[in-house]
Amino acid sequence: MKILNKGTVTSAQGFSANGLAAGIKKSGKPDLSLIVSDVACPTAGVYTKNSVKAAPLVLAKEYLKNNRAQAVICNSGNANCFTGKKGFAVAQKTAALISKLLKIKTQDVIVASTGIIGKQLPFEKIKAAAPALVAGLSTHKGHLAAKGILTTDLTQKEIAVQITLGGKKVIIGGCAKGSGMIQPNMATMLCFITTDAAITSKMLKQALLAATDHSFNCISVDGCMSTNDMVSVMANGFSGNPLISSANADFQKFTQALTFICTDLAKKIVLDGEGATKFIEILVDGAKSHTQAKTIALAIANSNLVKTAAYGSNPNWGRVAAAVGSLSLGVTENTIKITFSSFAKKHIKINVFLKLGQNKAIVYTSDLSPQYVHINGKYT
Amino acid sequence: MKILNKGTVTSAQGFSANGLAAGIKKSGKPDLSLIVSDVACPTAGVYTKNSVKAAPLVLAKEYLKNNRAQAVICNSGNANCFTGKKGFAVAQKTAALISKLLKIKTQDVIVASTGIIGKQLPFEKIKAAAPALVAGLSTHKGHLAAKGILTTDLTQKEIAVQITLGGKKVIIGGCAKGSGMIQPNMATMLCFITTDAAITSKMLKQALLAATDHSFNCISVDGCMSTNDMVSVMANGFSGNPLISSANADFQKFTQALTFICTDLAKKIVLDGEGATKFIEILVDGAKSHTQAKTIALAIANSNLVKTAAYGSNPNWGRVAAAVGSLSLGVTENTIKITFSSFAKKHIKINVFLKLGQNKAIVYTSDLSPQYVHINGKYT
Repeated sequence: MKILNKGTVTSAQGFSANGLAAGIKKSGKPDLSLIVSDVACPTAGVYTKNSVKAAPLVLAKEYLKNNRAQAVICNSGNANCFTGKKGFAVAQKTAALISKLLKIKTQDVIVASTGIIGKQLPFEKIKAAAPALVAGLSTHKGHLAAKGILTTDLTQKEIAVQITLGGKKVIIGGCAKGSGMIQPNMATMLCFITTDAAITSKMLKQALLAATDHSFNCISVDGCMSTNDMVSVMANGFSGNPLISSANADFQKFTQALTFICTDLAKKIVLDGEGATKFIEILVDGAKSHTQAKTIALAIANSNLVKTAAYGSNPNWGRVAAAVGSLSLGVTENTIKITFSSFAKKHIKINVFLKLGQNKAIVYTSDLSPQYVHINGKYT
Repeated sequence: MKILNKGTVTSAQGFSANGLAAGIKKSGKPDLSLIVSDVACPTAGVYTKNSVKAAPLVLAKEYLKNNRAQAVICNSGNANCFTGKKGFAVAQKTAALISKLLKIKTQDVIVASTGIIGKQLPFEKIKAAAPALVAGLSTHKGHLAAKGILTTDLTQKEIAVQITLGGKKVIIGGCAKGSGMIQPNMATMLCFITTDAAITSKMLKQALLAATDHSFNCISVDGCMSTNDMVSVMANGFSGNPLISSANADFQKFTQALTFICTDLAKKIVLDGEGATKFIEILVDGAKSHTQAKTIALAIANSNLVKTAAYGSNPNWGRVAAAVGSLSLGVTENTIKITFSSFAKKHIKINVFLKLGQNKAIVYTSDLSPQYVHINGKYT
């Protein structure tokens, strides 16, 4: 596997993209992105488990029932969530608009939104900006698309890798946005992945579920589950590799690369977590199951006392022990061992060893800083 | 029911108390408190559900198996938690020391601790201070006892009320400490209650469980469950009221007064939550059960995004909806109604109406401020 220099969503063959400022954000920053495949292709998506779902997410789930798409249109600055029938109509109209301009099927357009909840998304701004967005599509503008989906993010989050499947070069690229309301369960941010691999939609879904389980489902910034977020992957088959239609060796290789992409983007989200000054890696070993290990690691990751201890470079394993104990799994002082790396460094490792079983999990989180409070106290 | 002016743990007949600085805290502030009943009497306790329990808590549970006690000795500045056999021996030695000085049974001494986890509690400091602590016991020094149990608290938390049972004046008084690691499940702080009511230990326990369920179990400051905390109530019967031995009218009256005491102290803990600038009352109505309503209300209370919105005086019902939705109870945009009082005020009310059932619960919490981060980033 090779990591591509300046890799992005247009690194794979047959994908173009664009991003611009449509005026949804008051700041005038880019807020509308489009990613398009030259052909409609197998597409898989995973979504937030929050029962309060944003309009575009409801629509995307509906459209993706046929496991096929050709374009992703995403705005930032407004989540189009809790916006009623009017908001749902805006999502529908956005899909119709883009499909008309691209001359593709409406159902092949994935609509996504991120930003403030509860305010109507101004469709007229999307309508006004869409022609230029489509006209400017280019195989070199993946970075602009990566920029237009950001909210409080300080950095763009992109990556692409190249693997070889059946003698053919296959590229997978992706971009993501954070950076608050980050907590699993899937998918707690937006992430759009493209690949020129030839793979059936069934195997693509399977690969995506495996990849997200070990990446986006293992991160937490503030323990708050979002209403909006999703991960999608479009696979247009342009690389010409032998079609992956079973869990063969090529599938394993593809899944491994996809997991790498997702893990890289997940870590970038944590690193750029709202107000984050530290990156914390929490290993829990000796649990009954992987799921239990992850639950325990997330309880530690979501403890404000652990997060503030990290912020203050103030190692305190009592707080880690208290977080584990709060789950009432019977863990006591005598059945837990905790080790730390230096809290003074930017990258902190917390290792917890239990005597409940043989399984482990790693979770990534950030610290809790006064800046997080400032960002979220003022955000409107 | 009458609220007593300057009411405290020595307001009830037959109780004396004292508090002083034993040098456990580096700051030189009071850190050792003693509350004593003139006679051994029915006593009930409730404890944290954290499976990692502090040494004094383990000892107190053991000693209280006979539902009887005569004294509470509590230090602040050190939690005596995660301190192994040595720490447990310190708790035992403390009980033995106090019992010897008071000439009462060792098993009638409740030991409690609060403060930093993972450091050995210096027994020699308790030993050196104990004679003066006992010698200075007075029926006027409840306030000193209330002071000696504080940690990061900014204010003392005390109250006493008077009720009439069978023609006799009965007094219940209590003191409590917060102010971080505040999250139910019982008991997430220290609270010591005294009363001169005559009541059997069985009915006392029943009254305490009812009172805590509607008070201390309904508050959250940071969602972190403590390893140390407990609520105890000693009832010495000095008021001469007809012994309460069943769930009669006097029992209801007593429980109501005890609930009032606990609710008052619980609210005071929230008001004095670490870094708190706002007091938030969250009502959830229309739930399947009281427990479900409380779970939902606590999810809202523990959302860092809701808490920072309160801090920033920035009403955002999207965050409240997202917190409810994260519980995956099937609540959607169409089955939730949210109303707010002004976020600009110090006391904020958040009301959530659901369509799941007929039950409700109220939970109290504080906001999340930069000060919380500073306090917990530096605390050692």
